[in-house]
Amino acid sequence: MGTSDEDLLVRLRRLEDREAIRELHNQYCFIQDRGHSSHSDADVAAFLALCDPAIVWDNSPDGSRAHRGHAAVAGYLRALWQRFESCMHYVHNLSIVFESDDRASGRSSFEAVGDIGGEAFVAAGTYEDVYVRTQEGWKFLLHREVPFYFVTVQEGWAGPKPRIMARWRSPTS
Amino acid sequence: MGTSDEDLLVRLRRLEDREAIRELHNQYCFIQDRGHSSHSDADVAAFLALCDPAIVWDNSPDGSRAHRGHAAVAGYLRALWQRFESCMHYVHNLSIVFESDDRASGRSSFEAVGDIGGEAFVAAGTYEDVYVRTQEGWKFLLHREVPFYFVTVQEGWAGPKPRIMARWRSPTS
Amino acid sequence: MGTSDEDLLVRLRRLEDREAIRELHNQYCFIQDRGHSSHSDADVAAFLALCDPAIVWDNSPDGSRAHRGHAAVAGYLRALWQRFESCMHYVHNLSIVFESDDRASGRSSFEAVGDIGGEAFVAAGTYEDVYVRTQEGWKFLLHREVPFYFVTVQEGWAGPKPRIMARWRSPTS
Repeated sequence: MGTSDEDLLVRLRRLEDREAIRELHNQYCFIQDRGHSSHSDADVAAFLALCDPAIVWDNSPDGSRAHRGHAAVAGYLRALWQRFESCMHYVHNLSIVFESDDRASGRSSFEAVGDIGGEAFVAAGTYEDVYVRTQEGWKFLLHREVPFYFVTVQEGWAGPKPRIMARWRSPTS
Repeated sequence: MGTSDEDLLVRLRRLEDREAIRELHNQYCFIQDRGHSSHSDADVAAFLALCDPAIVWDNSPDGSRAHRGHAAVAGYLRALWQRFESCMHYVHNLSIVFESDDRASGRSSFEAVGDIGGEAFVAAGTYEDVYVRTQEGWKFLLHREVPFYFVTVQEGWAGPKPRIMARWRSPTS
Repeated sequence: MGTSDEDLLVRLRRLEDREAIRELHNQYCFIQDRGHSSHSDADVAAFLALCDPAIVWDNSPDGSRAHRGHAAVAGYLRALWQRFESCMHYVHNLSIVFESDDRASGRSSFEAVGDIGGEAFVAAGTYEDVYVRTQEGWKFLLHREVPFYFVTVQEGWAGPKPRIMARWRSPTS
């Protein structure tokens, strides 16, 4: 194949990479939704299969609340999933920028709905992610959630943002 | 063209197939939204144009409430659309897995909002689909809705899932 | 390259064009979200960078409320952003139809949530767009919003559609 064919293959692979990264987010949502109901180790393992071994889940802007590596993320998920009775996650507006052939960053908007402590809740915010191509395909390397609100339906989201319900403002979030 | 070109064409077509299947879901939403207002045969026909002649719409897990074929789905839609005053559907997290070149399965999350019996409602859940490539392009072969909730805003979705309002638990749903 | 390779390049570019148009909508949402908080000229400029110089933002069906060109859209955005305290936009079901290699039309569903006048609001509706390929990539040429509802959470969306809260029914919307 000549040079133009190689260029074409690079472009084709880039489109496939976008689909693979979208699929990471789809599975992220589905597995989280299952996990909030199941609290099962099988769902923890399924989630970790989306993550590079060097995964960092950091909902802080500065690493101060980062969970680093599979074992730490597993512990975080087990604690997180026990807080909810049920949940559905939606990912919107997924924007992917390639930093190299094997690394990309993403920004998206998310919503979640479900039950916490017997009450209906709604959540919204932004995901910031870094993805890497591994021998097993694309994986999350960094995941960060920047909340817009996380409130019970009864209290609502009016007021300064981020608007977080008191029960959610705990050290492990 | 040599072998590598044929491989490239297969990969390119696969990406186009993903777009075509996404478009099936887009049109599904738009036509349903119109149909809930119009109750028109033109919108029923437009919806059936998305469906293989062997379409099965089965909101039960076991086929016990399956609507099989265009005529049965048309009857279901006419009954369904009359129950609502208005609706918007959204499809999220659409995950497509190809079983062969001409057949794929999908899983997605959905939301719907609108009016039923003079009250605002919200719905959420999961779509499970099978798509087939026909001479007229990709079509739905199976469509299943697994509800998370379908409630009036006033009653809300707190409580065990699926959370379905009483008026919706009828034989034709 | 032979004819079939040229065809293949056209198909590949079409897929890339779809991704570029999706990205227009992603950035539309992100910049609007920032702008409602920042009210900054930098965000106005970032939004205009998504728009062809001949941009028409027309929320009326007949051009009677059209904002034509960058300066008019900038003025509209400055007024719009001051009305809200905060906002998140989501685009769903984005359906793109190519009219030519360099022009496409889009239809999508949108939701928005945030605060207006100290109260939580929810909005939903349809976007109708025209996109053109320019020397700087794909841009919006036409943007139209067809509302389903735009209401405070307290008043809700039950009732005839479009359901618009009184404070929003002003000449500049």
